[in-house]
Amino acid sequence: MGKKNKQFVENVTAMEDDFARWYTDVVKQADLVDYGPVRGTMIIKPDGFAIWENIRDELDRQIKATGHSNVSFPLFVPERLLQKEKDHVEGFAPEVAWVTHGGEDKLAERIAVRPTSEALFSDYYSKNIHSYRDLPMLYNQWANVVRWEKTTRPFLRSSEFHWQEGHTAHATDADASEETDRMLGVYADVVENYLAIPVYKGRKTDKEKFAGAKYTLTIEALMHDGKALQSATSHHFGSGFAEAFDITYLDENGESQFVHQTSWGLSTRIMGALIMVHGDNRGLVVPPQIAPTQAMIVPVAQHKEGVLDKAYDLRDEMKDLVRVGIDASDKKPGWKFNEYEMKGIPVRIEMGPKDIEKDQVVLVRRDTGEKEFVARTDLEARLPVLLDEIQQNLFDKALAHRVEKTSVATDMDEFKQTLDQKSGFIKAMWCGDMSCEEKIKEDTGATSRLIPFEQESIADTCVCCGKEAKELVYWAKAY
Amino acid sequence: MGKKNKQFVENVTAMEDDFARWYTDVVKQADLVDYGPVRGTMIIKPDGFAIWENIRDELDRQIKATGHSNVSFPLFVPERLLQKEKDHVEGFAPEVAWVTHGGEDKLAERIAVRPTSEALFSDYYSKNIHSYRDLPMLYNQWANVVRWEKTTRPFLRSSEFHWQEGHTAHATDADASEETDRMLGVYADVVENYLAIPVYKGRKTDKEKFAGAKYTLTIEALMHDGKALQSATSHHFGSGFAEAFDITYLDENGESQFVHQTSWGLSTRIMGALIMVHGDNRGLVVPPQIAPTQAMIVPVAQHKEGVLDKAYDLRDEMKDLVRVGIDASDKKPGWKFNEYEMKGIPVRIEMGPKDIEKDQVVLVRRDTGEKEFVARTDLEARLPVLLDEIQQNLFDKALAHRVEKTSVATDMDEFKQTLDQKSGFIKAMWCGDMSCEEKIKEDTGATSRLIPFEQESIADTCVCCGKEAKELVYWAKAY
Repeated sequence: MGKKNKQFVENVTAMEDDFARWYTDVVKQADLVDYGPVRGTMIIKPDGFAIWENIRDELDRQIKATGHSNVSFPLFVPERLLQKEKDHVEGFAPEVAWVTHGGEDKLAERIAVRPTSEALFSDYYSKNIHSYRDLPMLYNQWANVVRWEKTTRPFLRSSEFHWQEGHTAHATDADASEETDRMLGVYADVVENYLAIPVYKGRKTDKEKFAGAKYTLTIEALMHDGKALQSATSHHFGSGFAEAFDITYLDENGESQFVHQTSWGLSTRIMGALIMVHGDNRGLVVPPQIAPTQAMIVPVAQHKEGVLDKAYDLRDEMKDLVRVGIDASDKKPGWKFNEYEMKGIPVRIEMGPKDIEKDQVVLVRRDTGEKEFVARTDLEARLPVLLDEIQQNLFDKALAHRVEKTSVATDMDEFKQTLDQKSGFIKAMWCGDMSCEEKIKEDTGATSRLIPFEQESIADTCVCCGKEAKELVYWAKAY
Repeated sequence: MGKKNKQFVENVTAMEDDFARWYTDVVKQADLVDYGPVRGTMIIKPDGFAIWENIRDELDRQIKATGHSNVSFPLFVPERLLQKEKDHVEGFAPEVAWVTHGGEDKLAERIAVRPTSEALFSDYYSKNIHSYRDLPMLYNQWANVVRWEKTTRPFLRSSEFHWQEGHTAHATDADASEETDRMLGVYADVVENYLAIPVYKGRKTDKEKFAGAKYTLTIEALMHDGKALQSATSHHFGSGFAEAFDITYLDENGESQFVHQTSWGLSTRIMGALIMVHGDNRGLVVPPQIAPTQAMIVPVAQHKEGVLDKAYDLRDEMKDLVRVGIDASDKKPGWKFNEYEMKGIPVRIEMGPKDIEKDQVVLVRRDTGEKEFVARTDLEARLPVLLDEIQQNLFDKALAHRVEKTSVATDMDEFKQTLDQKSGFIKAMWCGDMSCEEKIKEDTGATSRLIPFEQESIADTCVCCGKEAKELVYWAKAY
């Protein structure tokens, strides 16, 4: 890093020195988040929220394109509803924020601030699904949920967070399976192609699945520090909630059947992945596809005649082509360079008197720092291509990092050694026994991240107990 | 009403018989809302939420175009923060839902589920505003809020509702005034030009202003039953919150000054206005500008060869031009006609074998019931124009209704008689004394709705006490 970055780098711990502090520093210096007055709550600031809006808009488009309707269910869940599905309440009750008073009056029944909304949707479905003609019911909502966490970190684990939660009901188990797969596919598409984050796809073990689910599908990403982050999940409930909530329909033969349900969610946690996959010691790096500002024009020597006019002309010419900003404030160009590097804006466009003379601009990539001089007449063609190149480069870099950090282990010594030396994902065979899963976690700190859809046989025996292996599992330390 | 509407009309009370029941029936039959399990909460169903999304998207566009940034502040407000501004806490404390437990633990301090967010934004501003260079700070959020109401009705008054709340901080009182005006203008534009609802614009009396505000601006609309509905408000706080929360900045001379704040909100309550301004005894009527489906194709005799193919061709040709749907289900056309009238879709496009033969379609307007035959080759030109005509007609009808229901009164006998006979708005002079305002409410049930920006002098004396009149006020019974 050159001297010019000093101002900001002073406020950002190097990620090699202390990754957790680097994360907190970037979140703060890039103006993404501030802390709310209630422990573990966050204020998402304009620059953070604009990125979330872009992620949300694309995901919302795909959720609608796959036939789902947006709805809005209440924030409040009566305690009795939450208790209907046994595994579900056991999973969530310890984290519930309870409302006990309305105004001056003590309530007859405690009310949960929703930690998730399966109980509400199931209650609704039990009253509104009657016939096979009502199925499938394909609902989604964008909502805030509350989980009273002991330790919190911005985006990664907060008392309140934002997400979308899809809740669907189907006639058959197979229909629900198809839906569970489909929505995992949507998540993988958004995360890989818009956030430029490669993901592994697979199924959670029973230990790690959602409270109340028959099974949970997941996409998992690798952070820069070699830890994994669960990026979105899609749950198949079978008829568990249907039986607890008595959600039945009359099939074509007039016989009563339980519905089969799914739910799936992606949350503001993904903002944490974005930061920890692409960020560097100069700050945030935002992939062009979701960057609120894709290119920032910084006039150089703007006090000289004609520079600002030309800069505004450039902005006007570019604004229908890319999301372009301009900083014509009286701050120094060097300050601006640092500021927009910290904020992760993909491209900086510099233009000073000499560039105007030569009828050119300077493009500086955030991801590589490379500079290129482009003739004004070529800019309209070049800039969108450059943004695509940056998008692709970010994905490729993250993928290369993941390849480098995905290892194989066939016994526990190898497992521990690899995890200690390289961190990242460890591919290892598993007997299917929860006690081995627990032992691995206890001995190494790594948890089973997923049973990948693409199975390979890398050994015949379980990495932990040496008994016959059932399936390949990806393990990692995780957020 | 013809016989064909019988099926649905059976489920909808005539508005002349019982307006409140008509409202509840339409909300239910048009599939907008269902009740949540906690008293006073609502489930906004797909058809209701899609309308709200269109309102939200247009308003969001205008909020951003006027320089504001979206943010997300927490759901939870510590009790101590809510108590900082005296008038504010007095106004809201009786309606607060209190969180007292997190998981198994009793909290050290009660936490309010936000009834509104002035306290949170003020707390943030006190920490983040330092210099005149930080001003203005122009934030907005789309959020859910909770007010523990005794009696509730879908959209109009619910324990939880959705809104946007803008919160801004400015260097001077004049800047804050300008902002307060500007945002009222944005609301008037959205409500008049997108929801086709004419509004009166003005200022609230001190009795009716927001708890903690220096003054409140409002837009007020007239419902079909002659009652008014406050449709959006914009508050000027002066430096009241700034003094309570110690929000200061250094001005250009290095002197410490209090900021001047505003807040402004439009909520899902506007959905109630939409229903009660445009709806009729056949159900909802949605203005084309915000209708999720602007035109619904209903094939007639669709079992006959070629009909469905042609209907789908029509849909494909129209879909980039207008928001068009098609109902190719095996339900009878008459059922479909009723269904989409109930849901308020602006235009029905009928197409049967005879129409195909003649190369035409039948367009049926929801607002007037008028039918017109249009040659297929003219449809692309005609349909958007028809939608504009419907939008304009809805506004004109609502305006005519308001003109008819806006009366003048110069003494209390006339006031009472007019209110009894005609309901609607009563224009009457007021001395400015709160006791007269209270007496009018007590004697007639009407409240002061606003002090209109466009003042007229219709008498020299107060309609209530006969003393010297200070200003013209619009009075009405209100939701």
